[in-house]
Amino acid sequence: MTRAYNFCAGPAALPLAVLERARDELTDYQGRGLSVMEMSHRSTEFVAIAEAAEQSLRRLLAIGDDHAVLFMQGGASTQFAAVPLNIGNGTGRAGYVDTGYWAGKAIKEARRFVDVDVLASSKDDAYTRVPEIAALPTGLDYVHITPNETIGGVEYHAFPDTGDVPLVGDASSTLLSRPLDVTRFGILYAGAQKNIGPAGLTVVIVRRDLIGQARETTPDMLNYATLAAADSMANTPPTYTWYLAGLVFDWLLEQGGLAAMEARNRAKAECLYTAIDASSFYASPVAPAARSWMNVPFTLADPGLDGAFLDGAEARGLLNLKGHRSVGGMRASLYNAVPQAAVDALIDYMGEFEREHG
Amino acid sequence: MTRAYNFCAGPAALPLAVLERARDELTDYQGRGLSVMEMSHRSTEFVAIAEAAEQSLRRLLAIGDDHAVLFMQGGASTQFAAVPLNIGNGTGRAGYVDTGYWAGKAIKEARRFVDVDVLASSKDDAYTRVPEIAALPTGLDYVHITPNETIGGVEYHAFPDTGDVPLVGDASSTLLSRPLDVTRFGILYAGAQKNIGPAGLTVVIVRRDLIGQARETTPDMLNYATLAAADSMANTPPTYTWYLAGLVFDWLLEQGGLAAMEARNRAKAECLYTAIDASSFYASPVAPAARSWMNVPFTLADPGLDGAFLDGAEARGLLNLKGHRSVGGMRASLYNAVPQAAVDALIDYMGEFEREHG
Repeated sequence: MTRAYNFCAGPAALPLAVLERARDELTDYQGRGLSVMEMSHRSTEFVAIAEAAEQSLRRLLAIGDDHAVLFMQGGASTQFAAVPLNIGNGTGRAGYVDTGYWAGKAIKEARRFVDVDVLASSKDDAYTRVPEIAALPTGLDYVHITPNETIGGVEYHAFPDTGDVPLVGDASSTLLSRPLDVTRFGILYAGAQKNIGPAGLTVVIVRRDLIGQARETTPDMLNYATLAAADSMANTPPTYTWYLAGLVFDWLLEQGGLAAMEARNRAKAECLYTAIDASSFYASPVAPAARSWMNVPFTLADPGLDGAFLDGAEARGLLNLKGHRSVGGMRASLYNAVPQAAVDALIDYMGEFEREHG
Repeated sequence: MTRAYNFCAGPAALPLAVLERARDELTDYQGRGLSVMEMSHRSTEFVAIAEAAEQSLRRLLAIGDDHAVLFMQGGASTQFAAVPLNIGNGTGRAGYVDTGYWAGKAIKEARRFVDVDVLASSKDDAYTRVPEIAALPTGLDYVHITPNETIGGVEYHAFPDTGDVPLVGDASSTLLSRPLDVTRFGILYAGAQKNIGPAGLTVVIVRRDLIGQARETTPDMLNYATLAAADSMANTPPTYTWYLAGLVFDWLLEQGGLAAMEARNRAKAECLYTAIDASSFYASPVAPAARSWMNVPFTLADPGLDGAFLDGAEARGLLNLKGHRSVGGMRASLYNAVPQAAVDALIDYMGEFEREHG
């Protein structure tokens, strides 16, 4: 087979080595006569797989015992409700920073459950930068940020200081792309389908002292206390996806962990932004200080050429470069499993396309 | 490899043909250069996979256009909350039939959101039969039953008539085991990890006129209206699990559909119950009229031999026969992917064990 270069924003490319191992073990896991997806989640074999995955994730992110790691379902969008239900039960007021599409979705959902105070917004700048929080009001149960906006391509390169107020981050499209100081966060959550594994798993890293405050009307399967008490097996977890996430974590450790990924990801992003900035045909809408390493939106000088650009890319095996329908243009997602060679091939193609059409 | 006979209650055995096809396509789906788990859920390829799976399920169960089919996350336990949140918003009163462990879990969770009226219970008979509803009170938003109790091994072989009151069923461990008249139900839901596919997917079949009544505090990802309007892609669905479910549906159609499965499943269950009843060493705790075709609990005359029975079974590749911790004894789950040969091997072993220890 010819392996495509897949720039999809998610579900995203996975390491080929992980896919090959999953394939080799698919019908028979280590001679047990059955697939991992056929194993009881209570079996010795699966519990070992699940615990090993958690330990690998803890090593990768240097997660200490102050934080629990939960393996949940429902995606980050379900956490948009779970967060206020679990920790918005004090004053019932929460601060949100509005950095774009996903922050907006989190805010809209939180309003079902808490009073939302929008602490800062870059809406007036078309969401092309990270807005500063001017002053933190008192009496907030938590402050929510979106460390990386998958659609807008805007990333926090330093996190705000919220003092004693728990900071909550939707880290879906940045978690595991580089080291991150988990102790800065009360809750970090991420849908798996970017840097963790296939869709259908949500990783929630939550400070243990924040667990156990959920309101009575929290669905039990969204209650962090229920999940934490049962090692994320309060009901049947998505076992096969959990196993695949473990394979990804082990692959990351073999690559040298998140410091190694940081170097690679920085290099990939710099190459692409440099090529865009050096051209008068392509443009990045995002302020340089806020540019995402994972999701790189860019536009063509003539949007009428978008279709031709995408057709030519696909013909070369450069897949999923179309920007999100809400913003248009192009977007290249450069997650961990996207190699430097993919970025090089994209830049080559961009140059050729510009020479032909520019 | 030697394929084990896997009697697990869930995650359960899957058809070997499905696993082999998944393996063959794992790293490269039909020459596209990427795995299904790497595809955008919005891509032409994946949308085709998703729609084909729904159509196959509709064919299998003869689901008409009056019912929507939703592919959700979170398992049946999440539906324990979703059902009252979505359709318990009229009088706020709902009727539940208490048939055992899973009915009890559904009742406990529903009480967060609605007034629960327990219409009938077999608790006094140690949950060994299906209790009759004496008279239906007026003013219920819905009536909830558990068509098959996975742990107790108690199954409805005919459903109660609730007139105009929507009947809701947690069909996790019975859906697709035989034909079922979907029109009898307002909502039927099932965790995938029995007869549908791997864990991490929940199928919800809901009458369209019941959609759109959710209370304001329903998490958006649990709101049937949100899911239905977005063809179950309101956020990223568990794409790979959905694909695998589609492979299972197609396998079922190739086997002759649910009428063929009914014949096979009836035969498997009858063999095992006949062997149990013919023995004075093994016993079924369940009333004959309520015995499950899918989950067959049985006890040994001397519980002190349970460990030896399980060790001997495992040594022969007869896996996961231990009963649920809440009831003890043994349990053989006979889902669609468990072949007659597995049941024959189990009965042979039971006979040998009885001759040795009885």
